[in-house]
Amino acid sequence: MMMENDRPKEACGVFGIYGHQSAAELTYLGLYALQHRGEESAGIVAANGKKAKSYLGMGLVADVFGGRFDKLLPGHLSIGHVRYSTTGSSAARNIQPFLVDYAGGGQLAVAHNGNLVNSTQLRNHLESLGSVFQSTMDSEIIIHLIARSRKKDFAEKIVHSISQLKGAYSFVFLAGDMLIAARDPYGFRPLCLGKIDNAHIIASETCALDLIGAEYLRDVEPGEVIFIDKNGLHSLTPFPKKKHSFCIFEYIYFARPDSNIFGGNVCLTRKMIGRKMALEMAADGDLVVPVPDAANYAALGFAEESGLPFEMGMVRNHYIGRTFIQPTQSIRDFQVRVKLSPIKSLFRGKKVVVIDDSIVRGTTGRTRMNTLRRAGAREVHLRISCPPHRFPCYYGIDFQAKGELIASSREIEEIRQHLGVDSLEYLSLDGLLQAMPVDSKEFCTACFNADYPLKPNEEIAKHRLEE
Amino acid sequence: MMMENDRPKEACGVFGIYGHQSAAELTYLGLYALQHRGEESAGIVAANGKKAKSYLGMGLVADVFGGRFDKLLPGHLSIGHVRYSTTGSSAARNIQPFLVDYAGGGQLAVAHNGNLVNSTQLRNHLESLGSVFQSTMDSEIIIHLIARSRKKDFAEKIVHSISQLKGAYSFVFLAGDMLIAARDPYGFRPLCLGKIDNAHIIASETCALDLIGAEYLRDVEPGEVIFIDKNGLHSLTPFPKKKHSFCIFEYIYFARPDSNIFGGNVCLTRKMIGRKMALEMAADGDLVVPVPDAANYAALGFAEESGLPFEMGMVRNHYIGRTFIQPTQSIRDFQVRVKLSPIKSLFRGKKVVVIDDSIVRGTTGRTRMNTLRRAGAREVHLRISCPPHRFPCYYGIDFQAKGELIASSREIEEIRQHLGVDSLEYLSLDGLLQAMPVDSKEFCTACFNADYPLKPNEEIAKHRLEE
Amino acid sequence: MMMENDRPKEACGVFGIYGHQSAAELTYLGLYALQHRGEESAGIVAANGKKAKSYLGMGLVADVFGGRFDKLLPGHLSIGHVRYSTTGSSAARNIQPFLVDYAGGGQLAVAHNGNLVNSTQLRNHLESLGSVFQSTMDSEIIIHLIARSRKKDFAEKIVHSISQLKGAYSFVFLAGDMLIAARDPYGFRPLCLGKIDNAHIIASETCALDLIGAEYLRDVEPGEVIFIDKNGLHSLTPFPKKKHSFCIFEYIYFARPDSNIFGGNVCLTRKMIGRKMALEMAADGDLVVPVPDAANYAALGFAEESGLPFEMGMVRNHYIGRTFIQPTQSIRDFQVRVKLSPIKSLFRGKKVVVIDDSIVRGTTGRTRMNTLRRAGAREVHLRISCPPHRFPCYYGIDFQAKGELIASSREIEEIRQHLGVDSLEYLSLDGLLQAMPVDSKEFCTACFNADYPLKPNEEIAKHRLEE
Amino acid sequence: MMMENDRPKEACGVFGIYGHQSAAELTYLGLYALQHRGEESAGIVAANGKKAKSYLGMGLVADVFGGRFDKLLPGHLSIGHVRYSTTGSSAARNIQPFLVDYAGGGQLAVAHNGNLVNSTQLRNHLESLGSVFQSTMDSEIIIHLIARSRKKDFAEKIVHSISQLKGAYSFVFLAGDMLIAARDPYGFRPLCLGKIDNAHIIASETCALDLIGAEYLRDVEPGEVIFIDKNGLHSLTPFPKKKHSFCIFEYIYFARPDSNIFGGNVCLTRKMIGRKMALEMAADGDLVVPVPDAANYAALGFAEESGLPFEMGMVRNHYIGRTFIQPTQSIRDFQVRVKLSPIKSLFRGKKVVVIDDSIVRGTTGRTRMNTLRRAGAREVHLRISCPPHRFPCYYGIDFQAKGELIASSREIEEIRQHLGVDSLEYLSLDGLLQAMPVDSKEFCTACFNADYPLKPNEEIAKHRLEE
Repeated sequence: MMMENDRPKEACGVFGIYGHQSAAELTYLGLYALQHRGEESAGIVAANGKKAKSYLGMGLVADVFGGRFDKLLPGHLSIGHVRYSTTGSSAARNIQPFLVDYAGGGQLAVAHNGNLVNSTQLRNHLESLGSVFQSTMDSEIIIHLIARSRKKDFAEKIVHSISQLKGAYSFVFLAGDMLIAARDPYGFRPLCLGKIDNAHIIASETCALDLIGAEYLRDVEPGEVIFIDKNGLHSLTPFPKKKHSFCIFEYIYFARPDSNIFGGNVCLTRKMIGRKMALEMAADGDLVVPVPDAANYAALGFAEESGLPFEMGMVRNHYIGRTFIQPTQSIRDFQVRVKLSPIKSLFRGKKVVVIDDSIVRGTTGRTRMNTLRRAGAREVHLRISCPPHRFPCYYGIDFQAKGELIASSREIEEIRQHLGVDSLEYLSLDGLLQAMPVDSKEFCTACFNADYPLKPNEEIAKHRLEE
Repeated sequence: MMMENDRPKEACGVFGIYGHQSAAELTYLGLYALQHRGEESAGIVAANGKKAKSYLGMGLVADVFGGRFDKLLPGHLSIGHVRYSTTGSSAARNIQPFLVDYAGGGQLAVAHNGNLVNSTQLRNHLESLGSVFQSTMDSEIIIHLIARSRKKDFAEKIVHSISQLKGAYSFVFLAGDMLIAARDPYGFRPLCLGKIDNAHIIASETCALDLIGAEYLRDVEPGEVIFIDKNGLHSLTPFPKKKHSFCIFEYIYFARPDSNIFGGNVCLTRKMIGRKMALEMAADGDLVVPVPDAANYAALGFAEESGLPFEMGMVRNHYIGRTFIQPTQSIRDFQVRVKLSPIKSLFRGKKVVVIDDSIVRGTTGRTRMNTLRRAGAREVHLRISCPPHRFPCYYGIDFQAKGELIASSREIEEIRQHLGVDSLEYLSLDGLLQAMPVDSKEFCTACFNADYPLKPNEEIAKHRLEE
Repeated sequence: MMMENDRPKEACGVFGIYGHQSAAELTYLGLYALQHRGEESAGIVAANGKKAKSYLGMGLVADVFGGRFDKLLPGHLSIGHVRYSTTGSSAARNIQPFLVDYAGGGQLAVAHNGNLVNSTQLRNHLESLGSVFQSTMDSEIIIHLIARSRKKDFAEKIVHSISQLKGAYSFVFLAGDMLIAARDPYGFRPLCLGKIDNAHIIASETCALDLIGAEYLRDVEPGEVIFIDKNGLHSLTPFPKKKHSFCIFEYIYFARPDSNIFGGNVCLTRKMIGRKMALEMAADGDLVVPVPDAANYAALGFAEESGLPFEMGMVRNHYIGRTFIQPTQSIRDFQVRVKLSPIKSLFRGKKVVVIDDSIVRGTTGRTRMNTLRRAGAREVHLRISCPPHRFPCYYGIDFQAKGELIASSREIEEIRQHLGVDSLEYLSLDGLLQAMPVDSKEFCTACFNADYPLKPNEEIAKHRLEE
Repeated sequence: MMMENDRPKEACGVFGIYGHQSAAELTYLGLYALQHRGEESAGIVAANGKKAKSYLGMGLVADVFGGRFDKLLPGHLSIGHVRYSTTGSSAARNIQPFLVDYAGGGQLAVAHNGNLVNSTQLRNHLESLGSVFQSTMDSEIIIHLIARSRKKDFAEKIVHSISQLKGAYSFVFLAGDMLIAARDPYGFRPLCLGKIDNAHIIASETCALDLIGAEYLRDVEPGEVIFIDKNGLHSLTPFPKKKHSFCIFEYIYFARPDSNIFGGNVCLTRKMIGRKMALEMAADGDLVVPVPDAANYAALGFAEESGLPFEMGMVRNHYIGRTFIQPTQSIRDFQVRVKLSPIKSLFRGKKVVVIDDSIVRGTTGRTRMNTLRRAGAREVHLRISCPPHRFPCYYGIDFQAKGELIASSREIEEIRQHLGVDSLEYLSLDGLLQAMPVDSKEFCTACFNADYPLKPNEEIAKHRLEE
């Protein structure tokens, strides 16, 4: 990834636990492990079966909670959420989990990873019935649907409400003394089930289980709704089956390398991607260098397959803080340079194969490539571990707020010239799919080829762009 | 008032302005003037007729905004709110103004001063219809009522929704390009109308008008609803008339001395109260000393009427910050002593008449009186500027969270002994009413005599105590 | 005083204690009581007889320490300091007490109130001998003198070093297991001795003793040096006697009204000043109003003597925080208006006698007086409780950084016109001196009449102005 | 390195620049690049040839300055410093650069990397002459020596003062309009000279030059003193020559991989160390895994030489903040686990060769190794890239505050058992020296073999341990 504030942004990470006396603390730790899925805000709802309380804040998990668990209600039940959100003060009202009081004095909370494609219609309909909305979050919609559901049984309310949603969703709910998990029938986003002591856990990725020493049981299946309470776990699969559409970008970039998702391990899959790259687009280079950290494993795989030496040729500065301010215009490109410093001794006079996982905008990529040349590289060959991103994602990834995907409007040769590299190649979609650890038909690849599993209508697309 | 964290707490102060290019800034300044009505959180919603945005925070107005108006939307229309709230992190969700999206893409915001007596019923009813609540605020109820109203005309929606409320309310609403003010038919809380340049202003007290140099036009009448938009001001009085029930404690303690409320000036009224005290309970003293600052004017009136010298015998420490922490248990009563220091040269060997405006709990009062004795006072005669508070208030004043009103369970002689003073007298209710600048029948005195204008039912009272 | 950031600035307050197990905590509380003598930084050195440690910071005492005494060394010996300092980051190096290691592994700390008139000469001399200076504080000079002293006995070192100083100083030193106090032979600044349990206390004002419940023993005499250690208290008066030169402005403005300094009580003295004002410059007014809080007592005395009613006609806003920022230029004079709000009901149509304690610059005074007129005052008669300040102070008061004393260059009539008041009168020097509780010859009045007890030489004066 | 708060601590990084209009800003950026040499405090002194001002603070460079250059004096001359310091509030007085006023109104500032071995003697001597010390820094000593020097010429003062120092020092001074650099004759710490535009730069490592786009000219030679002013650069080598004693731990751990120091590149040297490790202690493993980030390059070299696959088997959590607090005792070892997460898919059933750069204390190492086993590793073979640290460093590295070097008291087999690994081997000293890019006789290896170039006397060693 070329630049951190130039990254595609994942919507969220979710976590839930039922049946542990340190429920809120374990949720905190779980969110810590899921931090990469959302760096802008964090929240936890903790409950004791009678009462639920939330604590939310802007910033990283550690900043929001600062290790002070006195802010959280002691209890055996908790859900948590990390998210990216738009900048500005009003973002505060969009922090999840979303907690409300509803009929009969009950409390209901939800944390959501994904993106609905019929949210505008649902919202308009609900507003016409008299609902009011305090946030712009999809998760507020599902809350209203449940609150208005005429079904008698609570499980039926949940199922009936979810059945009205279209799009990507991996939900955890906290309702009274119950934890509920639900994943859309396409399975766009990962969601897994684990166990620690006698407590059940729901998490976006298995790395959250590992950190707290919990055991992985299985994935929450696409289309599955799981209810967990004092009587144990109860599973339903109430929705029509759909062709699985796992987000392939989770493997390429988002998920943590130590997680297992969609039936495979992320690190091993990235290495396999790197091997496919080497086979498909062999470069005449002296060494292989990843843009750290996301491209490390693809580069390792590339090096192993190609036989070229692997070098960690760029030193990542770990001190880049949030307070950093571009010093002056005269010290050009400082912010790009300070993040990654090339090791001149490795680059001097060499033909370097650089591995990265995407090119979103060209500006920072150009600067980055330029620093390699100034470090002495004779030739720079850039290899990208996936096809060009040409189409927007409607299922939870914010590739680019303004739709400025560089590849959507430019030819590869044009991008190569812009970046100033000697050659530029992208992995083919076929190559990428061959590297997958499970059946390649189970993936959504719409951002590469516009093959959308759920057709977005015009209105939604427009709404999306305006936001 | 004996101790600051022992004070009765007023619910809120509200402010609204329509038609000024610096609407948000003037709202900020108005809240500054109304800060005494709510020190725990502050918020502003600013709008330009098309879009509204809110900025809210815990703390004093100056802390929340820090003078940075870039957080606020530039526009000609704005409302603001200051409030007391319960401690703890969840208080954040109760900050006002409350802003939502509702039917047809509209935005609606409300700021509320007062307390409803039928909020539980309304809330239960709304929840049974499918509404969800994110806060415990009464102001969320009115929002739901408006959003659900089937009336076609917006003014009718407002009137119809307000007509369902019982209790004390001084509202300002911001809806689209309109500012709306409403005051309950009893007129429990003050609300006034002013003008600056061509802009109309609504504020809890006239001191907010004075600070920004605005002109006072008149009070918003009990039962009046005022609509202000580009076509000017339009007034309705759609509700059945009720006997006025102005909160007498606004005159005794809450309102700022430079404000005019309920048809009279606060400072002059307090002085008149002091005169009545002197007539009713003449003390054989050498000097009259107020507990600053709230009792200053009553003490001045007392001194003038009695002919005893007025002395500012206690020095208030202006540096008491929010970060102050009781140093150790061994330095007993430090927190009480540091706030007010008696001037020994004035007290030594003297018979002192001390004027205060209430005794809520006895603990800190006892310490305070004790410091006067240690400062050398020969006799201490405590005179309170109103009758004993024996009954809870259901209209917006939080006398005591746990219902520990000292006078509700103890005789005056018992309180005197507890405080350790030579004599203790309270102004009679008759005396207090005679000091009022308008007809004494127009006041609510329920906290003294349980004469509630709106009968609270048992359930409400219980709910109140539990909170 | 017209405006807070327009106030004369006192250099400092000092506090010291020997022989109490809560020495550092009591120093903290003592500084709390002396906060008015210095609001910009605070520091404490605490020691256990073997080791001394300091904790210093910018800001108010409560902000610097935040009640966290774990920052301070537990021990029986401590000194503390509050000060004004110049703005900007480099101010941090000027926070007192000043603590150093010196010959033989010893530690020495000093806190200083006052200003030396031969600091430049001493500093130049010390630098020529190889001393280096990290601060611009006079207190660093005395440290160097002691460290370089060839006297064998420590008491002799102290006396010999102090004997080289010219100017105003009230010192507390902490050296090994000893507390030392010293006051210059002129006695410019107050310094008192007290006792709590078996511990001795030194403090700038008696209000610090009162707050912690300590007993006042006596003043540290001008020219006295007091040594306090485990053997008790030992006093020397080693310097040539000088005519006493108590700073009269301590009575007028600086000291707290509940303090006793220079042999009298501050509150009573201010009241007497007010009486002298009434006798000397009787005004044909309807009421007397102080500019709070500093002029309160003079106004009370004025009212008593003149028979005019005393009114607290301006409401002070207690919420003015440090974060306050002038909102826009268009809301003119907001910062002046927000601090004090006139009560219109009192002013309307009245001839008002306003009592203040000084006019330093005219700008804010003009705005203040203007608000009274806008509040409806028919006539405004301003009476100042001392003569015009025409000359700089070299003994520790920073009247005006840039020497812009309004009265140094303008006639009273000119000032009156500038302020826009109907009449303006200053108390005469004779009148002021007659109000003093001790022999009027014992005071320094140089800021009024240039009668400097210690002649400043040209160089110093120049240095002073440049700073 | 096993754990971050278990790391050896380098004293400091220094930076200086003369002749650039953005001197202070470039110093800020240079310190950013040198941040790894000192994370606890940062400071900059900037000057314009007439006046110098300092800005210092606790924390990371970005936190201290926050990009706000308005805190720094604009000028063409600046020096800066980053350092580790002892914890606690008193650490504030030890922040560098140290800036003083001295004879003739001059200003002198110094930033120091290293540690003197005769500081106690020098300090005692200076104190006996009357000098006072505000800090415990060696850099305050050199300032006093210069200030007291009787030499007439300033260069002579500098040379004469430095000649009295024994130990490790890489200095930058700022004096009036001059920048001075000095490196001890042993050359313990690195120091280099660079150029940007027409400005000269001094820096601890070349990575600081690279970041700002400056050109590397040469190293400051051991024993060299360089004076830079408006007339250009002037070099002296006034001290007796000594055998070079470059700190070998700079290559092993401290210096940044992209820096060139002591005549070689750090990354390449680490890779060579890894190759020597593979040759010397071949392990029968399935894969080679570094403890990131410090051991990355040694592991790469090891893998290349041994032919075993290199795997980045532990994922480093980049979100570990300073506010992190151990959640509860029941979640054991969380803090170790959260920093590095093993990738189970890589470890399961494998014989893993783990490469690390040192073992300081065993506690965290044991936990770390244990997580690898729980991740499924069949065998864990730990290989350390240097010999055991058995002896303290007197030249600027704080291996362990309390002298608890695990290897100083335990046999390797004992450590192996403690860590719970299947085998443990350290690189031999010979092997390490063979990996060096320059003559192996030029290195200090005292921490491994007690071969101290400058014999520490007992007193110093004791002083060192007590601190």
